[in-house]
Amino acid sequence: MTRITCNLSVSVDGFVAGSRQSIENPIGEGGMRLHEWHFDPNADDQAVIDEWQLSPGAYVMGRNMFSPGRGEWDLDWRGWWGEEPPYHAPVFVLTHHPREPLIMQGGTTFHFVTEGLDAALEAAKAAAGDKNVEIAGGAGTVNAYLQSGAIQELHLHVSPVLLGAGERLFDGVSAELTLAPVAVVGSRRATHVKYRVGSA
Amino acid sequence: MTRITCNLSVSVDGFVAGSRQSIENPIGEGGMRLHEWHFDPNADDQAVIDEWQLSPGAYVMGRNMFSPGRGEWDLDWRGWWGEEPPYHAPVFVLTHHPREPLIMQGGTTFHFVTEGLDAALEAAKAAAGDKNVEIAGGAGTVNAYLQSGAIQELHLHVSPVLLGAGERLFDGVSAELTLAPVAVVGSRRATHVKYRVGSA
Repeated sequence: MTRITCNLSVSVDGFVAGSRQSIENPIGEGGMRLHEWHFDPNADDQAVIDEWQLSPGAYVMGRNMFSPGRGEWDLDWRGWWGEEPPYHAPVFVLTHHPREPLIMQGGTTFHFVTEGLDAALEAAKAAAGDKNVEIAGGAGTVNAYLQSGAIQELHLHVSPVLLGAGERLFDGVSAELTLAPVAVVGSRRATHVKYRVGSA
Repeated sequence: MTRITCNLSVSVDGFVAGSRQSIENPIGEGGMRLHEWHFDPNADDQAVIDEWQLSPGAYVMGRNMFSPGRGEWDLDWRGWWGEEPPYHAPVFVLTHHPREPLIMQGGTTFHFVTEGLDAALEAAKAAAGDKNVEIAGGAGTVNAYLQSGAIQELHLHVSPVLLGAGERLFDGVSAELTLAPVAVVGSRRATHVKYRVGSA
């Protein structure tokens, strides 16, 4: 059974990206600070990264994460991650603009889905086989899949950072959603809390 | 040297009280769910509670925490905690209305301070001696003391609950504040993260 998972780096004040996202600053002002634990991990952080990155068989990504600050109609855009993106699996990108699949190096192929959240999730499930489907972000996409009840496991990586403004996790998500903590790892760089997600 | 500490139970979406606080529901809709870990702790939670409750020599409390949903001019009001409040120490209550100290059972005395945040903190420091001063809440008072740089240690008790609305921790607090995690305890009921607080 394919599990639907979501890993997110989030500030202590609840933001997953800073304000004023742009071409120059795709995760917004201060947003890179959320990911510092990822670039300079200690052993505990590294174990979390290994678990996160080894298990997904496919990803779903919002259009703003694929092309923040850009028109999604720019069919020459190849993403922010260079020619070998870190996904190494099929990535289903929500968009309003049909486009042929984009085959990158290292196993990542971006597929563009215009039929909405459910269609993207079903396509990712079919591609993932026995492995997880990971909801890659951004905040709007994660909040929509939380609200729909699709996400079964939410792994928050809380960075010791305040952003003060930006894209807020849980915006518009019903308080009926239930969260059960199943694992916690703390480091100097971040607090990693894994929640099983259900509904009341 | 007196340390200034703050322990707060907070929802995963960042609220320390629910919406529509009233006489009947002093911590707002759903707010009691934040404190369930406190009423049904496991051994790890209990160790956190013991550390929290044994160390303060004095408390500072906002007027809305002392008298949520009530006029602070009600001089017969004796707080929400019955005749033996759980503080067992002097509590300095921020208010606009002068009032004689209110001596309760079990060592709690409520002192009413009309001269503002700094005056309340200085009075609490003098009363605490070598022990901590704990900022008891609510959100507005904690945010003001965070913003002023007074709080040195912030201990968040993150309950696996979404409130969706209410009093938000960190509202109006500058992103310049730095937080360094120094201890993490996870349980089925809550994730307890202790931060050392500084400024950039």
